[in-house]
Amino acid sequence: MSQLRSWVEVPDNSDYTIYNLPYGIFKTEGKKPRVGVAIGKKILDLHAVAKLGYFNKLSLPPKIFRKKYLNDFIALGKPVWSKVRQRITELLSESNTELRQCAHLVLKPQEEAILLLPVKVGDYTDFYSSIEHATNVGKMFRDPDNALLPNWKHIPVGYHGRASSVYISGTPIHRPKGQTLPPGADQPVFGPTKRLDFELEMAFIVGRETNPGQTIPIDKADDYIFGMVMFNDWSARDIQKWEYVPLGPFLGKNFASTASPWVVTMEALEPFKVNGPTQEPKVLPYLQFKGKKNYDINLEVSIHPLDGKDTVVCRTNFKYMYWNMAQQLAHHTVNGCNVKIGDMMASGTISGKEVGSYGSLLELTWSGKNPITLKDGNTRTFIEDNDVVYMRGSAKKGNIRIGFGEMCAKILPAL
Amino acid sequence: MSQLRSWVEVPDNSDYTIYNLPYGIFKTEGKKPRVGVAIGKKILDLHAVAKLGYFNKLSLPPKIFRKKYLNDFIALGKPVWSKVRQRITELLSESNTELRQCAHLVLKPQEEAILLLPVKVGDYTDFYSSIEHATNVGKMFRDPDNALLPNWKHIPVGYHGRASSVYISGTPIHRPKGQTLPPGADQPVFGPTKRLDFELEMAFIVGRETNPGQTIPIDKADDYIFGMVMFNDWSARDIQKWEYVPLGPFLGKNFASTASPWVVTMEALEPFKVNGPTQEPKVLPYLQFKGKKNYDINLEVSIHPLDGKDTVVCRTNFKYMYWNMAQQLAHHTVNGCNVKIGDMMASGTISGKEVGSYGSLLELTWSGKNPITLKDGNTRTFIEDNDVVYMRGSAKKGNIRIGFGEMCAKILPAL
Repeated sequence: MSQLRSWVEVPDNSDYTIYNLPYGIFKTEGKKPRVGVAIGKKILDLHAVAKLGYFNKLSLPPKIFRKKYLNDFIALGKPVWSKVRQRITELLSESNTELRQCAHLVLKPQEEAILLLPVKVGDYTDFYSSIEHATNVGKMFRDPDNALLPNWKHIPVGYHGRASSVYISGTPIHRPKGQTLPPGADQPVFGPTKRLDFELEMAFIVGRETNPGQTIPIDKADDYIFGMVMFNDWSARDIQKWEYVPLGPFLGKNFASTASPWVVTMEALEPFKVNGPTQEPKVLPYLQFKGKKNYDINLEVSIHPLDGKDTVVCRTNFKYMYWNMAQQLAHHTVNGCNVKIGDMMASGTISGKEVGSYGSLLELTWSGKNPITLKDGNTRTFIEDNDVVYMRGSAKKGNIRIGFGEMCAKILPAL
Repeated sequence: MSQLRSWVEVPDNSDYTIYNLPYGIFKTEGKKPRVGVAIGKKILDLHAVAKLGYFNKLSLPPKIFRKKYLNDFIALGKPVWSKVRQRITELLSESNTELRQCAHLVLKPQEEAILLLPVKVGDYTDFYSSIEHATNVGKMFRDPDNALLPNWKHIPVGYHGRASSVYISGTPIHRPKGQTLPPGADQPVFGPTKRLDFELEMAFIVGRETNPGQTIPIDKADDYIFGMVMFNDWSARDIQKWEYVPLGPFLGKNFASTASPWVVTMEALEPFKVNGPTQEPKVLPYLQFKGKKNYDINLEVSIHPLDGKDTVVCRTNFKYMYWNMAQQLAHHTVNGCNVKIGDMMASGTISGKEVGSYGSLLELTWSGKNPITLKDGNTRTFIEDNDVVYMRGSAKKGNIRIGFGEMCAKILPAL
């Protein structure tokens, strides 16, 4: 296949090549939020493109791209996602001259735009689908010889998180306060968390709703997934530890999660499909799937202290996940639980086999026992005030490169 | 105080007296959903009242009562809730003639209306705040001698539920399917739940939003609560048991919850405030409160089998709750978790000290060991197909009586 190029300048190693075309919601001065597509260092303003008539043949609803959220566009369904993607690819291709003549009307520099949370999240679910992560946590908190709980290889374990506190990349977060039980104490104390952690995750966005009682068969699950973002499931480990038995994580997690702004579509991710780990014992029939369901996406996390240097502390890959997204969605709905467009379903912490590929400080420092030394000489067991945590994700295959950009959030002192 | 009466006929023992005035969303043939207030066997159509000019002095936003949800009305704030309530009380009072002359324009028979879910639920949280319930569950599933976990008396334990599957009373629910681990087995099986249960709960509706990072001090919590509904947190005990360690309930709960249609305001509930149980050991300062924070609300559950007889299986009271709503809300936001208007926060199963006051079949039948005999001779350990579960709630003090009406849902066979 010959390399596809755009007439819009795309720097080498850009995440936003013509193969990507991720959707986001952006705002520029004096204008209402609208849908855009990232290309190189620009945003293609889809509302402007539509107004100029370049989508006329697609018969889209009026103002479908002048929205605060992608939900209405997503609701048009998979065949429309495909047609729009195809048309944008055509319009941005090097050989195409239609849009090029009015580039100044449809392209905005990314640096001049404010990116907003791309979807209105109805419900947010967090899975726990990395076997390496679940094993590490089990070793630390339960039994090193029986780290995985009996249900783990049968169920893509998950829990409901807080939808209201899913924030867009860049939103600063105050260190949460809460109850913790100090080591050896028998009474809890109150104060800012001392063990604030990131969790490197990916999340998919539900693209099609189900009726109450309806289940999504695993071989149809792909039709219900619009795209993906990077996701940081912030965790206060000391709060979580004291509260989570028996009903699961609550205040240790629900103060904030951070999502990346550009939704990379499943169509863009198609070339990066790979096989996942072998599942043994065999899973129940409703979780059995055919074909490649994992994705080869390189991920990294770095910590940037105030006045310090950015240090990558984790390099891992989404392909390590034991449970895939089709299994997660089939499981989530097998009891008739309904899903809605915009629901976010996160993977759980993504860890690999090596220490440097663990997706949380809990694992990287082994519960604080092994501090990490940063490039600037600072050490970290957990996140300190004014640290900025970055996450980056990209996929490459031959000439094709796409990415999720860079996501960040700064931790401010407790209020 | 002399008895307040309405010119609208209110049968003896009606839940919908002039002291109540609960808000709901209703639909009649050919009309759009709108806000109504239950009075006797009628619904006062607030949109019609507003159109006739009877709210003119309150300067409400136009069409505030022609909405699919109460959220926009709730967003006007507590002083407006009060003024509107005061005005409705005035308009419906026996001595008032303003509205009476056009009664036919503003009153609809409840039996001709379809009631809809009254609020758009952003996030749904379920607490676990009955000490009797937590103790019963702890005895059955963990250690009879240490039934309460160490955190229970320090934290109003809670977890996030599924907002999309909160359904209005009357919505039938299909028996959920899922994974369970049969007794003695080492591999799970798949099929319809064999241990389907109700959980008798009350839920409050958040009436004012907070900013990210903001906490609600306990002495301000009342300003953030609009009103309450009855709530049935349906539970598939066998699915729940196999899945819930370590991240809490998921598919065992998220197939459905049932909410009652009429939101009883905190103003209406004011006369029924009582002291709650003594909390010992003393809670941390952010959970310490002054005054009466519990509510004396009688609750009951009945089971009505197909072609059988309705049998009350539980009689209990909301006043037994160990943790109150102000504590729940102060705790929920102490870490900076933001809340939004319409969020639903449920109490957890409400159990009293006696067997007949337990709010779930799990407790009433002691995990299925002691079947209940119904009036028609049927026995139940858990809910069977085509059973209808009813919940009723009311409060009485002197001449004042208010209630939540009757809530129901039928369990249909698994799909």
